[in-house]
Parts: sequence; structure tokens; C-alpha cells
Amino acid sequence: MPETYAPLNPPRRLLMGPGPSPVEPRVYQAMTKPIVGHLDPYFFEVTGDVRSLLQEVFGTANEFTLAISGTGTSGMETAVSNFVESGSKVCVFANGYFCDRISEMVRRQGAEVARLEKPWGETFVDEEARKFILDEKPQVVAFVHAETSTGAVQEGKAICEAAHEVGALVIADTVTSLGNIPVNVDAAGIDIAYSCSQKGLACPPGLAPVTVSPRAVEWLRRRGTMNRSFYLDLKLLDEYLLSAHKYHHTAPISMFYALREALVIVHEEGLENRFRRIERNHKAFAAGIEAMGLRMHVEEGRRLYPLNTPCVPEGVDDAKVRARMLNEDGIEILGGFGPLAGKVWRIGIMGAGSTKENVLLLLESFQRALEAEGYRPAGNGRQAAEAFYAQA
Amino acid sequence: MPETYAPLNPPRRLLMGPGPSPVEPRVYQAMTKPIVGHLDPYFFEVTGDVRSLLQEVFGTANEFTLAISGTGTSGMETAVSNFVESGSKVCVFANGYFCDRISEMVRRQGAEVARLEKPWGETFVDEEARKFILDEKPQVVAFVHAETSTGAVQEGKAICEAAHEVGALVIADTVTSLGNIPVNVDAAGIDIAYSCSQKGLACPPGLAPVTVSPRAVEWLRRRGTMNRSFYLDLKLLDEYLLSAHKYHHTAPISMFYALREALVIVHEEGLENRFRRIERNHKAFAAGIEAMGLRMHVEEGRRLYPLNTPCVPEGVDDAKVRARMLNEDGIEILGGFGPLAGKVWRIGIMGAGSTKENVLLLLESFQRALEAEGYRPAGNGRQAAEAFYAQA
Repeated sequence: MPETYAPLNPPRRLLMGPGPSPVEPRVYQAMTKPIVGHLDPYFFEVTGDVRSLLQEVFGTANEFTLAISGTGTSGMETAVSNFVESGSKVCVFANGYFCDRISEMVRRQGAEVARLEKPWGETFVDEEARKFILDEKPQVVAFVHAETSTGAVQEGKAICEAAHEVGALVIADTVTSLGNIPVNVDAAGIDIAYSCSQKGLACPPGLAPVTVSPRAVEWLRRRGTMNRSFYLDLKLLDEYLLSAHKYHHTAPISMFYALREALVIVHEEGLENRFRRIERNHKAFAAGIEAMGLRMHVEEGRRLYPLNTPCVPEGVDDAKVRARMLNEDGIEILGGFGPLAGKVWRIGIMGAGSTKENVLLLLESFQRALEAEGYRPAGNGRQAAEAFYAQA
Repeated sequence: MPETYAPLNPPRRLLMGPGPSPVEPRVYQAMTKPIVGHLDPYFFEVTGDVRSLLQEVFGTANEFTLAISGTGTSGMETAVSNFVESGSKVCVFANGYFCDRISEMVRRQGAEVARLEKPWGETFVDEEARKFILDEKPQVVAFVHAETSTGAVQEGKAICEAAHEVGALVIADTVTSLGNIPVNVDAAGIDIAYSCSQKGLACPPGLAPVTVSPRAVEWLRRRGTMNRSFYLDLKLLDEYLLSAHKYHHTAPISMFYALREALVIVHEEGLENRFRRIERNHKAFAAGIEAMGLRMHVEEGRRLYPLNTPCVPEGVDDAKVRARMLNEDGIEILGGFGPLAGKVWRIGIMGAGSTKENVLLLLESFQRALEAEGYRPAGNGRQAAEAFYAQA
């Protein structure tokens, strides 16, 4: 063990990967506010604000809307452990990494998984989604609204309609969509949606927003078996955070301060403005990518604006490009993984990080790194993005 | 939903309850440092420091020492879900609330609980602990080293010896001991210990330190069944935080910064100095309590120095005393619960909050509130504590 430890001195990164995304100074400052106890009335004022602000961004009137004291993955496990019983059947729309993770969690609960498969980056059309659910007649259906591993958006309305026809509940992963693009929980008919704090909401990681429809709450109250998890048991979390304010665990107070501040920033910007900003910056980036002669992995119309997956051109080493951008410009982007390893980059232009300035910096750095690695771009990416901004 | 949200403005509390305890400015400042990605080499430097600093405070050479991305309760669930299989038998030493919580988690795993019961505030002597374990021959033994609900310390050495004789692993709850009193994981022979960030370590809540002995790691590698929890699966967490640095979840970076800073403060003070400080302030407080004619619930010799449980005197309403202290002096103490509801207060003099100044403030405020609620103290608590400090 060292005798002395150097002061914390993290490098300054421009976080343009799939998340965490850049955090605004106001949010960091919120974490310096003095903590109160986990049963202090002030803490419940904060959780009350977090609830109403999350309702807005989830697009829901669900009373049962809260933040779980863990990261996005704990949000996924909250959804699965509370709503999937041993022996039940779960339909999973499988077109990326996070669908696989849901499948694994379902199996760990001792439940059966039925999967409809597609290559990573594709999505399901209404008819095939509907047929799958009506054929399988599951108890639960799960889909990933915004696939962080591929950059594709899966719309949920047809899935929810078919699921409800067979009496199933619908779980939606909104980890990369919440605060970045409309989630519309109520309009789509989603029963359980979970997310994270560190992508569209631009807060540090550490909390998992979750919302539960009255139909799912009703199911939970009737559930005969016990959740294997005490920590993530929504019946107990309801009693702590939402209703009776009865002790369950010591919530991470500073993280709740940060999440409230981040949500207030979203509220102040206005959801429509925020979504428009993120779409516009995505389009400017895509214009730059195409000008360089690169191709986006996901077809137009199914793209997840905050998470861009340009394809790695023939002969270029994706990791070397990333390393150059990190080391020379302090810009973090990530690579693909699973079937997309070495084939795409994953570039986040999301939350507070989705700005014209960042798009231009990013394109410039990206092009420089590509050229250093031997790629000959068709044109100038930054200039194409500037031209897009000038006319849009 | 309100149109505008007021800026965060938490009341300033002197946190003298069972935790969270007061946080030093350096720790709050650590959370304002810019986050890096959850797979950034700098993040793994931080987790490396957290590991070596936790080894010191746990009193262990265990390589498998890390912080779980959740609160203390997630630490308990990590211990139980990883080491208790469905169908196995767990011996629980049951003398307070947190033993009950462990029992509940064990049952949720589908395992059998054998309990040796004592009234809340009492502890188990070596002979009876030993007999219980040898009679029951369990796969796992669990005890609470520092019972936050009662203020009693349960020593673990005899429990661990007997457990190892029958081939059982030992889980210890060190939530209120870590950083406050010696835990001595290796010397006691504890296999799995878990704790929290917000008590003896004086960090905000949000992380759960956990350490696992080589014997328990070996057991885990051979475990045939799957942990029901993906989020708390130590095999996966090892690959993320300790060994391969492979993605598992997005760790709460800012909380890790805070925990590292809090642990560096502990390291700088020195464990022996810290433990001596906390013992001394406990003794000064106890002198004050006795001078007022009050009684401590736990016998001398078994008392948990950081968590004091003076008995509520006949005819006094414990909640009214607490409310006065909170409203008039901004000091938070908590009441008892379960069998100790209305019978004791729970007063934390722990972590960074264990100072002479706080003890004197606390005794003064406590005495004033008691008198306002009709109690006639035998003498002056603050003066007795001052006399103790003058001679000690």
C-alpha cells in the first residue's frame, strides 16, 4: 500500500462515447450541498421533485415513478426481478447486446426466454412483432427502445398493443433514450420502463429512473411469489420513496441532489427544444460522416440520434483511431462489440454534450485520426457539418 | 407539475444519528471533479486505490476487495446472493434488526435459516456461539459485527473458528464498524464482510465496500448454481473492477471519487488514531449521559462506540426530544425501532462527526430538550463530558 496518495486529478475528457455524457457544472455543484438523513423530510421533497420531473421526461402520468439506488443495470434488474417469476415465459426482441442481457437476467430468475432474432442494428416491424407475441403468448414482453450497442431505435406501440392483447406486461429499456428522444411511456403503452442517469439526463452515473404503469402495479400487488431481491423489491421501495417513507435502505442523497438538478435543467430547456437540438446535431454529424465517404451502420429512419454508429472503413483499425482521439484531443468515443466489434464506432452526441461546438470538434478530431491511420476521406466532415448548420 | 423548481437548498443538519454521518468538505469537493468513462484507465487507478485503502481499513490482505455500486443494503445482498444457494442452511445470530434482514434475504434465496436468538442489545458468548454452529452444521454463518439497531458489538473470532470447523463460510455485517472500530477481517477469520460508505468512512451514501477471503473466492469459483442477481454477481464484478476491466455496468464514478477521498482521509489520520478518537468521544458522551442520570442500553464492554443507545427515561416521549433537537438546534438523532421503539435513542458519534465539539453540542442540546420535555437530570451532561476530556 502506498504511504501517501496523490490528490484526485482526473484527466479532462470530452465524453462522446455511449455514456457517461458530459455533466454540467450546476450538476457537479449540486453534489456539494450538505447531505441530510435518508428519512429527512427534505430528502422526500427531493424525491417528490424527482418523481414529477421524471414523469415529464418519461411521458407518463404513472404515480409509481422513482429512481433506484444503483446504475442503469440495476434498473434492468429491477424490471426483470419484480415482473418475471420463475416458470413464466418472456418474449425478447433480440437485436443487440442489451436484449441479450435482459435474456440472461430472465434466465437467472428461472424463467423461459423466447427470442425473435435480427442482426444487430436492424429493428422489428409491427407485423412481425405482433405475430411473435400472439404466437408465443408470454407473460412478459421485453424490448430495447434505444439499443446502445447498435444505435437503432425500436418503436414500442405495436409491441405493447399485441402484448396487452395476450395479457402480458411490457418492459422497455430506455437507457439511451430518456432525455435524448421522446420515450412516450403512456402513449406507447409501456408498463415498465427503466433508464440511467448518465446519458440523456447528463448526470453522473449512480441512479436508475424507473416508471411502472397502474396495470403493472396491480400485477405486482397480486404477485404470489417473492422477489429474490430485497434491495430491488419495488413493493418495499414504494413504501420508502413514494408512500409511507419507511426505512428500506440509505439512499445515495448526493446522487439524488445531482439527478434533481439535471432534471431541472432538462425541464428548463423544455423537452421539445432538447429533442430538436439532439436531432439537429445528429444530422449535422451524419452530414459530416457522409461527406468523408463513410457510412452510418443504421438505416435512416431507425437511427438513434444520440448514439451514432458510423462503420469502420475497410483497412482501418478502429481501436487506433479511438486511441489517437483520446490521446491527442482528449475525446472519448467507443468501439462496437459483439458482432459489431471492429465494424462500427459508437459516438454519443447526447444530453448536455450535444452541441454544435462538440460536433465540429469531434468531426475534426475524427477526420485527423482517420487520415493518420491511412484513410483518405472523400471530403471534409467539419465543413459539411458547418454547411448543414448554416442552412438548417 | 410545478412550472419552476427552486434551487436545491438543503437544511444544514448536524448528523448525529446512526448514519449518514457528517461529510468533510474535501469529500464533497471530490465529487466536483470531472467524470471519466467507466472503462477509462483513470477510473481503474481510482478503483485500485479504493482497493488498497479498503484492505487497510478492513484489516485484510484479501485481493478480492471492492466497492459495490449500491448502498450498504446492496452489500448485504451481495454477500447473501453470492454465497447462499437455494436449499442450503444458514446460521444467523439474531440480536437486532439487521440479523432479521439477513434472515429475510436468505429466505428469499430459497435457503433455510437457523436462528440463535437474544434480546436486542445483548451479544453471544463464545461457548454458545460455538455450540449453535456445531449443532446446526450450516453451509454459511452470518453475524452482525456492529448492530446499528442496538449499539452492541458482536466479536467474530469464535464464530469464525467454529464455522470453519464445520466447513461453513462466515458473513459479517460491518456496516457501522468499518472505519469506526477495528474490523480485523483476517485476524477474526471472516470470509465475507460488507459495509457502507456513509458511517465510519464519512462519505455520502452510495457505495458498499465488500471483501472476500481466498477461501470464499474458491467456493464461488466452484459454485454450481447461478446467482439470481446479475447486478451483484461477484464473478462479473471481479472481471469488471478487479481483473480484466471488462464492461459490466457503468460504475458511479463521482461516488468512487468521494469514497477514495474519504478513505485517503482515514489513511492520513491513521486507523489507530481514528479508533482512539472515536472511543474517547464515546466515553465522554457516556460520562455525560450518566451524569444526567440516564442509562446506556448496552452493557459496558459490549458497546459499539460510534453508535450510542441511551435509554429513554420513564415518562419522556423520545420523538418529542428528537423533534426539539432537530428543530431548535439542527441536530439529527434517531429513535429505536422494533422491540426498542420508544425505549432508546440512537446517537451516532462516528467518522468525521466524532469530535469533542460535537459531543459537547450534542449533550447540551440533548439536556435542553430532555428538560423541556419534563425530565429532571441528576447533573449537567456537558460539564461531566468536559471533566472527562480534562482528565483523559
